[in-house]
Amino acid sequence: MKLRDVFDNISPIDYRYWDEEVAAHLSENGFTRYKLLVELALVTTLHNRGMCDEITVLEVEFACRRVTTEEVYGEEDRIQHDIRALVNCLRTKVSRRAKPYIHMTATSNDIIDSSNAARYMDAVERILIPALTNLEEVLITITLREAETVQVGRTHGQHAVPITFGFALAGYVSRLGGSIEALKILAEELPGKFSGAVGAHNASSLFFDDPEEFETEVLAELGLVPVECSTQIVPPEAMTRLLCEVAIASGILANLADDMRHLQRTEIGEVGEEFEVAQVGSSTMPQKRNPINFENTKSCWQIVVPRIVTVFMDQISEHQRDMTNGASIRTHPEIIAYAVHMAKRLTRTMRKLKVDQENLLKNLDMTRGGIVAEPLYIILAALGHPDAHEKVRALTLQAQREARSLEEVVVCDAEMKNYLEKMTPHQREIISDPLLYTGIAAKKARKVAAHWKQKLSL
Amino acid sequence: MKLRDVFDNISPIDYRYWDEEVAAHLSENGFTRYKLLVELALVTTLHNRGMCDEITVLEVEFACRRVTTEEVYGEEDRIQHDIRALVNCLRTKVSRRAKPYIHMTATSNDIIDSSNAARYMDAVERILIPALTNLEEVLITITLREAETVQVGRTHGQHAVPITFGFALAGYVSRLGGSIEALKILAEELPGKFSGAVGAHNASSLFFDDPEEFETEVLAELGLVPVECSTQIVPPEAMTRLLCEVAIASGILANLADDMRHLQRTEIGEVGEEFEVAQVGSSTMPQKRNPINFENTKSCWQIVVPRIVTVFMDQISEHQRDMTNGASIRTHPEIIAYAVHMAKRLTRTMRKLKVDQENLLKNLDMTRGGIVAEPLYIILAALGHPDAHEKVRALTLQAQREARSLEEVVVCDAEMKNYLEKMTPHQREIISDPLLYTGIAAKKARKVAAHWKQKLSL
Amino acid sequence: MKLRDVFDNISPIDYRYWDEEVAAHLSENGFTRYKLLVELALVTTLHNRGMCDEITVLEVEFACRRVTTEEVYGEEDRIQHDIRALVNCLRTKVSRRAKPYIHMTATSNDIIDSSNAARYMDAVERILIPALTNLEEVLITITLREAETVQVGRTHGQHAVPITFGFALAGYVSRLGGSIEALKILAEELPGKFSGAVGAHNASSLFFDDPEEFETEVLAELGLVPVECSTQIVPPEAMTRLLCEVAIASGILANLADDMRHLQRTEIGEVGEEFEVAQVGSSTMPQKRNPINFENTKSCWQIVVPRIVTVFMDQISEHQRDMTNGASIRTHPEIIAYAVHMAKRLTRTMRKLKVDQENLLKNLDMTRGGIVAEPLYIILAALGHPDAHEKVRALTLQAQREARSLEEVVVCDAEMKNYLEKMTPHQREIISDPLLYTGIAAKKARKVAAHWKQKLSL
Amino acid sequence: MKLRDVFDNISPIDYRYWDEEVAAHLSENGFTRYKLLVELALVTTLHNRGMCDEITVLEVEFACRRVTTEEVYGEEDRIQHDIRALVNCLRTKVSRRAKPYIHMTATSNDIIDSSNAARYMDAVERILIPALTNLEEVLITITLREAETVQVGRTHGQHAVPITFGFALAGYVSRLGGSIEALKILAEELPGKFSGAVGAHNASSLFFDDPEEFETEVLAELGLVPVECSTQIVPPEAMTRLLCEVAIASGILANLADDMRHLQRTEIGEVGEEFEVAQVGSSTMPQKRNPINFENTKSCWQIVVPRIVTVFMDQISEHQRDMTNGASIRTHPEIIAYAVHMAKRLTRTMRKLKVDQENLLKNLDMTRGGIVAEPLYIILAALGHPDAHEKVRALTLQAQREARSLEEVVVCDAEMKNYLEKMTPHQREIISDPLLYTGIAAKKARKVAAHWKQKLSL
Repeated sequence: MKLRDVFDNISPIDYRYWDEEVAAHLSENGFTRYKLLVELALVTTLHNRGMCDEITVLEVEFACRRVTTEEVYGEEDRIQHDIRALVNCLRTKVSRRAKPYIHMTATSNDIIDSSNAARYMDAVERILIPALTNLEEVLITITLREAETVQVGRTHGQHAVPITFGFALAGYVSRLGGSIEALKILAEELPGKFSGAVGAHNASSLFFDDPEEFETEVLAELGLVPVECSTQIVPPEAMTRLLCEVAIASGILANLADDMRHLQRTEIGEVGEEFEVAQVGSSTMPQKRNPINFENTKSCWQIVVPRIVTVFMDQISEHQRDMTNGASIRTHPEIIAYAVHMAKRLTRTMRKLKVDQENLLKNLDMTRGGIVAEPLYIILAALGHPDAHEKVRALTLQAQREARSLEEVVVCDAEMKNYLEKMTPHQREIISDPLLYTGIAAKKARKVAAHWKQKLSL
Repeated sequence: MKLRDVFDNISPIDYRYWDEEVAAHLSENGFTRYKLLVELALVTTLHNRGMCDEITVLEVEFACRRVTTEEVYGEEDRIQHDIRALVNCLRTKVSRRAKPYIHMTATSNDIIDSSNAARYMDAVERILIPALTNLEEVLITITLREAETVQVGRTHGQHAVPITFGFALAGYVSRLGGSIEALKILAEELPGKFSGAVGAHNASSLFFDDPEEFETEVLAELGLVPVECSTQIVPPEAMTRLLCEVAIASGILANLADDMRHLQRTEIGEVGEEFEVAQVGSSTMPQKRNPINFENTKSCWQIVVPRIVTVFMDQISEHQRDMTNGASIRTHPEIIAYAVHMAKRLTRTMRKLKVDQENLLKNLDMTRGGIVAEPLYIILAALGHPDAHEKVRALTLQAQREARSLEEVVVCDAEMKNYLEKMTPHQREIISDPLLYTGIAAKKARKVAAHWKQKLSL
Repeated sequence: MKLRDVFDNISPIDYRYWDEEVAAHLSENGFTRYKLLVELALVTTLHNRGMCDEITVLEVEFACRRVTTEEVYGEEDRIQHDIRALVNCLRTKVSRRAKPYIHMTATSNDIIDSSNAARYMDAVERILIPALTNLEEVLITITLREAETVQVGRTHGQHAVPITFGFALAGYVSRLGGSIEALKILAEELPGKFSGAVGAHNASSLFFDDPEEFETEVLAELGLVPVECSTQIVPPEAMTRLLCEVAIASGILANLADDMRHLQRTEIGEVGEEFEVAQVGSSTMPQKRNPINFENTKSCWQIVVPRIVTVFMDQISEHQRDMTNGASIRTHPEIIAYAVHMAKRLTRTMRKLKVDQENLLKNLDMTRGGIVAEPLYIILAALGHPDAHEKVRALTLQAQREARSLEEVVVCDAEMKNYLEKMTPHQREIISDPLLYTGIAAKKARKVAAHWKQKLSL
Repeated sequence: MKLRDVFDNISPIDYRYWDEEVAAHLSENGFTRYKLLVELALVTTLHNRGMCDEITVLEVEFACRRVTTEEVYGEEDRIQHDIRALVNCLRTKVSRRAKPYIHMTATSNDIIDSSNAARYMDAVERILIPALTNLEEVLITITLREAETVQVGRTHGQHAVPITFGFALAGYVSRLGGSIEALKILAEELPGKFSGAVGAHNASSLFFDDPEEFETEVLAELGLVPVECSTQIVPPEAMTRLLCEVAIASGILANLADDMRHLQRTEIGEVGEEFEVAQVGSSTMPQKRNPINFENTKSCWQIVVPRIVTVFMDQISEHQRDMTNGASIRTHPEIIAYAVHMAKRLTRTMRKLKVDQENLLKNLDMTRGGIVAEPLYIILAALGHPDAHEKVRALTLQAQREARSLEEVVVCDAEMKNYLEKMTPHQREIISDPLLYTGIAAKKARKVAAHWKQKLSL
């Protein structure tokens, strides 16, 4: 252990947004642990093949438990090679008899890439997906609770036609559910490799007639499958796809957060983050109720998305590999770490979300006249009006000019009389009460919620 | 038609890298055509449901063929709304009887998003995937032809241990094959929508008891399925995933191109782009043979990758949608267009690739001593040498110092004598002739090639 | 000329946002024209140095006027080299006597980089800066007109304390003015080069004792200065800085547009884009007034910003140059083209901006109680209240709970009595009328406007 | 202090590339220290204006020294506001008399933005610029040392015409020098603010008739000037420009590193990183000499460049500010931290750079025939050959075909005889010995080195 004040750290992921669960897999200590697991898987496989005895496996297993990152870094300082340093530390902890089996036929990236696959898989399956699923559960709860709560739909920041608040959230349930499913598949598919320095199994071919089978066995110890064809490294596409999906998931969260913080604007006030008793909104304006958690989610997305470009840059490696992605690949875990932070924080915030019925209705009322324009135009068109859209546009402008409701203007319009009579009762009712014009919003909200509840076993 | 000199265009995709096949789907004219297909699908469905007669369908079909983009832009100039302009142009071309059925219950983005899904699906399935598959076929041919051609493997730009040239390409066959498969799935999965202004089927619910079924029928006319839940727009994730995969595919091409242009360096000379008789390498240096096609591939990747950030930014849309992605979403087709250009150009270049056997052997010989260090260390370790890696490192340095081959130094080293005697004949042979140390390179090359040949029916 | 329907173009910059003025410099035809200017500058300099006669200059000048891009592309198709193609086209148009002086000692990038410097400089100085300055002028007009128009200040989308609308715009006047100034300097500083194939003046040294002086003379013909040290190319930093500043300017525009479109939200309604008589807001919702121009500005920013990464990628070129930026560098003009489009469109929109006094006051009134919390806390603190922030926070919560104005609650609070008496009349007045609490907003607005009016000679 | 094992950190900037000097300014502790400096500057100014006595200043100064980040975070946990937490911690450490003057009239971002300006300015001026200047000094030394060392110039990875190694480095001296100068100006120009919650000096206007003068005085205590016009925050452009220039500087370093690692390729071998005695090149290939430091530099650039997009995203803040950049802005210091790491590591590596004269000459010799093609063509053209470029291209192809030197072929060519006779002796000499064809490379190298040595007082 090499202790340091966490506030001497430079990256906010290490002082402000650090998460113990994430660090268990994605810190340098986590990485060391997984690399040792790969070295152990190798010796286990050699034993399974009868090349070494069980004592050797036990020796290595015991040694693995005692290797520390600090020790490996000390050795690396001396010899300037990270994996050789790890191997040296391990070798000093076993008997002379066991030494030859450590790292046997392996190249550095057999260890690095396979341990990366294993720890990213674990981090996504055990931390990120559960965190997103917790959020999904909260969203489903709100979707069901507010399935019938009428809200004005908004496009371009302008009132459009009504939906329900539950329906608005159902869209996020569907999008987030889809991303969780995609993450599951992509995490499972992360492959490993054990094909040596240039991927052609050169070294293992010195000892085995079936080097590909040998590779499969080593990786199976880790719950991994081998990639079809490797160089010194596992081709980066599987990891790139996984990290793109993490960015996509974070985009869904950011979109939700953006919606919520705008709904929390002073003039809109349809939702609010619950404020803690002691919470301060502003250092000078005690009345402020700032949507800081929603803002934080959006801001983390601004961290995550550009870093995908680093991942794409890291996709390119010359010949059997160069190491121009050596440092940058070490930053990929940050993408997952920020996504986990976003999911956890947004879950806490959404769980406490207050929906303000009064303001919902007040806002719906603002243009109650206006939002009926769409059904009116559509019904007129269906009833054969030759230029329904233009007619309704004119009526709307008239209503605004005269500060009357659209219905009033319509009822008084000579040309409209005939059409009003031809409408079905339901159609006529909607012109009078736009709150009824929510289509299948409530039904759809419940359907989507039910689908994902079942699919994710919530 | 509104004619302009192509060289008055500003984007190179429109003067230098323009492709007729791509433009058929991804130009503004292509977009108009697909939007009209959606309007037609709507009327066809209304007819299927008995709401209008067949004459109406025929009228609309005939009208669709006569609407031009120029005309739509003219109308848009007047009314400042793109889809309403299209609808107006269409309506003026049909009888009064048919007018009400045009755009009935639809919102703009029912048309826009569904036509985008259809044309992106077509562009990827009919142009990009075939272009990539052509490249894959060329790569498979070279892989098989050069499966046994020994080449030095390189990591960090340094000679490592031998592979074969076919094996090096097999890695790209595998990666590209995987990306083609991914593109197929993602293109097929692009969903449409026909759920109205805020996604709750508000308008269609005025006429149908089963608005979701209605949506399914309209989209089926276009070979599309509806998204589970929409707002005014189709949630962007499916498109984002597709475009990420296009960027990933372009990264594979760029990586291949990078490898090839470095192998074409004057000092390496293992491959070369075939030069045309009249081709000029430099405006002042007539001797130059520049890898301009490989450079072009890399450069197009530098265009494509950052634009993925625009796609991620476009993922976020407030409430039921805002239009802060209105202009930027129009640039997404460029990503596919550049990828197609890269695939076609790289195919032409790889098809003519010359592999220089002489230089391959010359380069292998440069460190023939050196590249045997790995098998030597591994065999020593397996034979129980207590510190094999360090021992071989010392022998290598000695060989360099004394300008002798590593084998010579080994044979003369007292400590080594014993180990040399314990080696198997095959192991001993490899120490003498590193060209034999290619592991399963040739076999793997053929296996990978066969797999993708079969999988892609080549 | 090679004609094509503009709607067969793939990039929106070539069908929807194309601008003749921009194309004059930044299209391929514009590029050809500038490249010919450089070739002419070379011959002019040779003449000035007595190496060729005036007839030669006139011949070349006349030939330059007749070379077309189409012709150059035809020749390039044959010989696969763009600048050699241009040179060949030029040479065929002059007498045998004049031929040797064309392109004499030049390498392709002497022509390309110098013409790029010249045309980017012109495009920025003649088009982008004037377009931004027009916008600046409109902003200054509004700033002065609305200098006293009280508006609630907003942070986190929540009401904070009052400002004036003119003050809000003054911030943009200041930011945009700063960016215009920066652009001027960076455009002027774009250097050219005439130092041959690897930058060491190898070729010109064959003829001149003072090759650097010769370079200076050629570039002076174009209004350029030479870069201190070049390779085959001009080091990319000056261009990178210029394009970063273009992105920064576009960010300022996007920020302004974002503010305006949110102020146009149905619930806020403080500003509005003027609607044209025939304008349609939605294809189905005739009542809509969508802020499409502000949305377009933001969307173009989403195009521009990620492309800066391409510019940064293009900064790296191996050794004396590689051409992995050959295609991508051709897309840099698009960055400027979008910025010009943004500036022109936003200018038109801001020019017609309606400010709604009624809604401004209505919104100010929403929390009139609340926004006085800050001055109250600050005055209390200054008067020695031991825990002013906490006290006011409690009073604010009480006012909300009891639905009374903050002033009322304060006046009734026993502890407050003493403090109210100690306040200056101005301080007491502000507690009663928050509209007075605008600090120096109006004065600052006028000061900033005056500064930039004078600085930019508006 | 809150201790943690550094290897439990997630970001490599906090375990592998952490730098004490950087952390002093850019860690969270560094940030706290600077924020306290701003609070102290405020009280000092109040004292200078006679509003509080000197004892108060001393009390606050003493209290500032005792506030710890851990304590502030503890308070923030309770009240959910970072700056209010800092203020509370400070207030508890001073007498009741002094409390009112702490944070008087300030808003959070008066403190945050001003302290950010101060610490970024310091980090750039005291750490980054010195680190880059150290590198510049090493590059100047090599430039001068190798000013005459002939090296083949390379374009497209192909041999072009000769330069000198010192000249190649002079290009970097010039580029890096330019970036250092730009950084100096941009760091100095970082402005602060002390204008309150919405930038209109609302609060300070309650107490001062000259709130702008008051702002100027507070910031002067910190060596800062006020920005012309602010909202709640300092407009982000100055910081954006600074960080863009940091990315530009890192691009120059990456370009240099790319050149060096390619020159270190086994087949080229013109330079090499000095290897330490105990250093291990590969975990399995003891002979390897990998350019890991150059690769690391490039890789860090792949971290830095995409993050500029975060900076651009953070440029946009709604109205008087939103906090969607609250988390992301905390990652900006990482950009500087990586740049410092790159500069320091590259300096160490370049200082030990070995230039291999033997390989330089060997490589020059590879196409000695070829690289004379340029001067030959140029001289022929100048001597009036009607189609010199084509003629030399043909001769070059002939020389390659016949495996003879270009000079041989030329001398034997009938048409050439006449031209050879007309050449000056120097021209004729160059055709025979391409090593002479280095133009003004050596002279330019020395000139550039001298310029920057003087300019940077090295």
